[in-house]
Amino acid sequence: MLGGVNLMLFESADTAATLPRTDRRARHLLGVLRRQVGGEFDAGVVNGPRGKGTLIAVRSDEIDLELAWSTPTPPLDPVTLLVGLPRPQTARDILREATALGVGALHFFSPEKGEASYARSSLWTSGEWRRLLVSGAEQAFDTRLPEVTHGRGLAEIVAQLPAHGSRIAFDNYESPRPLSATTVTAPVILAFGPERGWSAGERGLLRAKAFDFAHLGTRVLRSETAVIAAVSLVKTRLGLL
Amino acid sequence: MLGGVNLMLFESADTAATLPRTDRRARHLLGVLRRQVGGEFDAGVVNGPRGKGTLIAVRSDEIDLELAWSTPTPPLDPVTLLVGLPRPQTARDILREATALGVGALHFFSPEKGEASYARSSLWTSGEWRRLLVSGAEQAFDTRLPEVTHGRGLAEIVAQLPAHGSRIAFDNYESPRPLSATTVTAPVILAFGPERGWSAGERGLLRAKAFDFAHLGTRVLRSETAVIAAVSLVKTRLGLL
Repeated sequence: MLGGVNLMLFESADTAATLPRTDRRARHLLGVLRRQVGGEFDAGVVNGPRGKGTLIAVRSDEIDLELAWSTPTPPLDPVTLLVGLPRPQTARDILREATALGVGALHFFSPEKGEASYARSSLWTSGEWRRLLVSGAEQAFDTRLPEVTHGRGLAEIVAQLPAHGSRIAFDNYESPRPLSATTVTAPVILAFGPERGWSAGERGLLRAKAFDFAHLGTRVLRSETAVIAAVSLVKTRLGLL
Repeated sequence: MLGGVNLMLFESADTAATLPRTDRRARHLLGVLRRQVGGEFDAGVVNGPRGKGTLIAVRSDEIDLELAWSTPTPPLDPVTLLVGLPRPQTARDILREATALGVGALHFFSPEKGEASYARSSLWTSGEWRRLLVSGAEQAFDTRLPEVTHGRGLAEIVAQLPAHGSRIAFDNYESPRPLSATTVTAPVILAFGPERGWSAGERGLLRAKAFDFAHLGTRVLRSETAVIAAVSLVKTRLGLL
């Protein structure tokens, strides 16, 4: 139940690294963990193993680290999310928390009833989206980042999904049953509509592509809360939680 | 899957109201819902019925509303959260999202390994905490607010809990089993430790008071994410979701 950086991630499996004092990991190590020369910390390679780091030297502008990689990490969970591209702040929460929960892939599609400005956010143009994945993995003590795409249409994404497993679309207004009464077998695809709801065309496409419609109860939840609730329930049903 | 105000809450069951244009509900009605004179909206009374509002007049500084109350709302769910007083931003998310999920009571206790400044936050001294409950209820299309306390010790809170039902404490480090393998009967008490973890004294107290320890998997989640996940799982187990 900690919050923040529980595992410090590096982009390569080098066994030595020099970081500027302004690097987020250098600041965390010195400012939050308060490590001194010789001090150890938990480290990982993005999409690679976990291991241990040691602080070797602290200079005025840089720090030196020694890194030893030892522990392979398991694959992410067989859960894929399709999410109607939401406002950037909602997308940020979903990127970070879905990664922390171990989701394997996240596809933000351009919805028919969408808001075009959302796709032009610096979230997507600056690389911030990937930093949120790293943050979610560091929180969860994992090294793996989900596959993420954004800006494609729903039909294109659905055409590339695995043919087996469960496909579930959330729709508070048209769903006959709760998620808890829906069959769940891996791999699981969970589709969340955009803020303004599914269009008739999107509903038709989902039906044609064998999605079951489900709801999460009568209470209207924020998208980011609905994602956390649904992923947690599905992981439990798959025996993963 | 909407976000924001799905039901506008009022503090009394009056059938007419005049609001300053600066009131959050007036701004929402005119600025977001874009209602004109004669337009209707969904309204509710805090801890009372739902109904319909009608915009009657718009003046330069005030608006007049007519309100009709019709639909009783069901009680909140028999789920109580005990949460080690977290940093204010985390507490804000938990207050709003636990309310949206329908939790009946939230007790933020002063943990032994706590940070004294958290209790002095304007969140607790300004009444902001209650506005977050209203916001969570408005999101969820409900009128009911959970009972909330903060600043008491864990022992005092536990002494006042109902004697029947399930008591579950989350502890990623000392728990023998996942929540999904734990017996759940209503009413359910869920206890979440503080950022720095349970103290030995708190663990002993929970054991003495018949709490079962459970975990939410090997991934380390933010407190606010763990709360959403655990409440969703428990509500499903109780047949409420």
